Amino acid sequence: MKKVYMDNAAAMPLLPEAKDAMLPFLGEAFGNPSSLHEWGDKARDAIEEARASVASLIGADAEEIYFTSGGTESNNFAVKGMALAQQAKGKHIIVSAIEHFSVLNSAATLCKWGFEVTEVPVDKYGAVNPEDVKKAIREDTVLVSIMHANGEIGTIQPIKEIAAITRKMKIPFHTDAVATAGTIPVNVNELEVDALSLAANSFYGPKGSGALWVRKGIRIMPLLDGGIQEGGRRGGTENVAGIVGMGKAAEVAAAQMRDRIKHLIPLRDRLITELPAKIGHVIVTGHLQSRLPGHASFCVEFIEGEAMLMLLNSKGIAVSSGSACTSKALKASHVLLALGLDHAIAQGSALFTMGMDTTNEDIDYVLETMPSLVTRLRQMSPLYDKFIKAGKGG
Amino acid sequence: MKKVYMDNAAAMPLLPEAKDAMLPFLGEAFGNPSSLHEWGDKARDAIEEARASVASLIGADAEEIYFTSGGTESNNFAVKGMALAQQAKGKHIIVSAIEHFSVLNSAATLCKWGFEVTEVPVDKYGAVNPEDVKKAIREDTVLVSIMHANGEIGTIQPIKEIAAITRKMKIPFHTDAVATAGTIPVNVNELEVDALSLAANSFYGPKGSGALWVRKGIRIMPLLDGGIQEGGRRGGTENVAGIVGMGKAAEVAAAQMRDRIKHLIPLRDRLITELPAKIGHVIVTGHLQSRLPGHASFCVEFIEGEAMLMLLNSKGIAVSSGSACTSKALKASHVLLALGLDHAIAQGSALFTMGMDTTNEDIDYVLETMPSLVTRLRQMSPLYDKFIKAGKGG
Repeated sequence: MKKVYMDNAAAMPLLPEAKDAMLPFLGEAFGNPSSLHEWGDKARDAIEEARASVASLIGADAEEIYFTSGGTESNNFAVKGMALAQQAKGKHIIVSAIEHFSVLNSAATLCKWGFEVTEVPVDKYGAVNPEDVKKAIREDTVLVSIMHANGEIGTIQPIKEIAAITRKMKIPFHTDAVATAGTIPVNVNELEVDALSLAANSFYGPKGSGALWVRKGIRIMPLLDGGIQEGGRRGGTENVAGIVGMGKAAEVAAAQMRDRIKHLIPLRDRLITELPAKIGHVIVTGHLQSRLPGHASFCVEFIEGEAMLMLLNSKGIAVSSGSACTSKALKASHVLLALGLDHAIAQGSALFTMGMDTTNEDIDYVLETMPSLVTRLRQMSPLYDKFIKAGKGG
Repeated sequence: MKKVYMDNAAAMPLLPEAKDAMLPFLGEAFGNPSSLHEWGDKARDAIEEARASVASLIGADAEEIYFTSGGTESNNFAVKGMALAQQAKGKHIIVSAIEHFSVLNSAATLCKWGFEVTEVPVDKYGAVNPEDVKKAIREDTVLVSIMHANGEIGTIQPIKEIAAITRKMKIPFHTDAVATAGTIPVNVNELEVDALSLAANSFYGPKGSGALWVRKGIRIMPLLDGGIQEGGRRGGTENVAGIVGMGKAAEVAAAQMRDRIKHLIPLRDRLITELPAKIGHVIVTGHLQSRLPGHASFCVEFIEGEAMLMLLNSKGIAVSSGSACTSKALKASHVLLALGLDHAIAQGSALFTMGMDTTNEDIDYVLETMPSLVTRLRQMSPLYDKFIKAGKGG
């Protein structure tokens, strides 16, 4: 059976160059970077090299990069750490309604600690209006956290425009760039943000490896208290192999980014155009232009998305109904609901995220396979009558 | 030049079996464990197998194991998470004076949030007196956190005796078992603790991989808010390879533990007995009997420890002056000061931590090499006059 992997938002294969770079640190070069002997020196040098590569990927200074265990830790560190460091100034923060749960649930935790949180809405394409951020700002606002792009719907936010507002009002601005850093050009000085989260497994690096960039002068409390690692801002013996893999993946991502984007956009656009035409009653979710290159997301009406995933999997096609972080929860996505879609439609979500290995033949196979599966599911669905009434044209 | 690595407390080589188990997950098996397709299934199954192995190592139920990015995260998760979950009951916690900085600094953070912390002292061997814990308990005490063994001085604490007290008074008891789990027998039901931290790199597993065990029914708040991973208690895409490596290392540690201990104790005892005799004016730190098997720690009087480390390193011998987490800080260790040693003596600390590969020839080499180095250092030291006065016999 043909195998088509289109769930790169959930997990990407590790880049062979990154794996090769990691292997010595899973072997003889096992020292602790804090140790003052040659084993330690080798690990320390490797980490500093990786730090420079990650910094270079986002146009930052190496000393402003803090390695973490991934995007979730970076987001917790940023949201809690920046809010708590400034709580003497105020206890109000602003996020968007479609942030990742690592931001939304960190904000919820801050609420337990006496903070207030304003969620700015998004339009039907999932875009934040910078004016809404401006309106939400209060005297006691100490943090704005709005993601660069959403992994479920692919929409890229107007970060620069939001930053123009926060900068003018001197409010620290964090962006979750897990979906963008390493995928599209990200430069912290062009974006004018103050902190930015990234994750290695979003650009073919290893799982369990991420970073938070924090602009010099921005106050932040540690999330992981401990030793003197990472300038005292993030304790714990470093995951040396993971960090080295992230560094190499960052270096390669920077070099190949143009080509990767050039490869992905036509594949994405084929799927976005042809799939709805083949199936009918399909809503493309997210923004059509301001969108991640390999990202196609839909709501297929009159079906239940999880059942569709199972059937697709039985045909060798791996896709997702949304964020992997919630896939087992079987709840309608907060992101889709924020677009104004109703629960029934949000249930039919399907997310195709392509990668370097995705081919036009893969798209062909999806386009051939999916219509009959969807027809079958609609026939079995309690919504079948509604579907017939709506007319097959869609 | 001969190479002797005796800094296993800072970093251990990765077990080849663990590395082999990890490799598929750095290759084709790259799925996200939360994904509902075959790539996800494979990763999920591997994680659950690892969870069972880690649970088995400490006599726990698999569903009570939460994977983390290492010992520091586990300790932050336990101390902050258990204290915050119970703050309605009270805001007082108890730790020992010689905890790892991931516990002490978590406690310091809790202080900022209105908690009070009592540090119970240790005796000159680094042992906590359970009676001191009993005396420190107040009506509003909601957590006791005392480590199983200290990585700097090797002393193993009377955890069972302390647990008898906390259990009677219904106060949750966490122990940092980073130095013991996988090294000596650790059974959560024999110890009768309520939460226990462990780290893979303490038993030849990969860096960046740890776990917190939390007894069913014990309340804890997440440290990393996010998705539905780890039962909703620890968000973030799992470090699948790291977790698999930890599982394999746990399995092998359980099988080889007896043999490893049998190998290590005579090496340790040789060094502890012969080194002071060869050098003079050497204090063995920590407990002589209730002590980690591969652990020999000293304070060499009338020298500065960091200089000794450099010289030893120039002879191919890798040791540490204390915890790697503080080695670059060049401050006298809080652990040594808690034993009642003065600053000048604590400056001369040297920590030899042996492993499976350590041989009697390695001990020979250390015993041959070190005396002349120490003599040289003492001659150069501003304390030389004092040394002469003290008499060479020591």
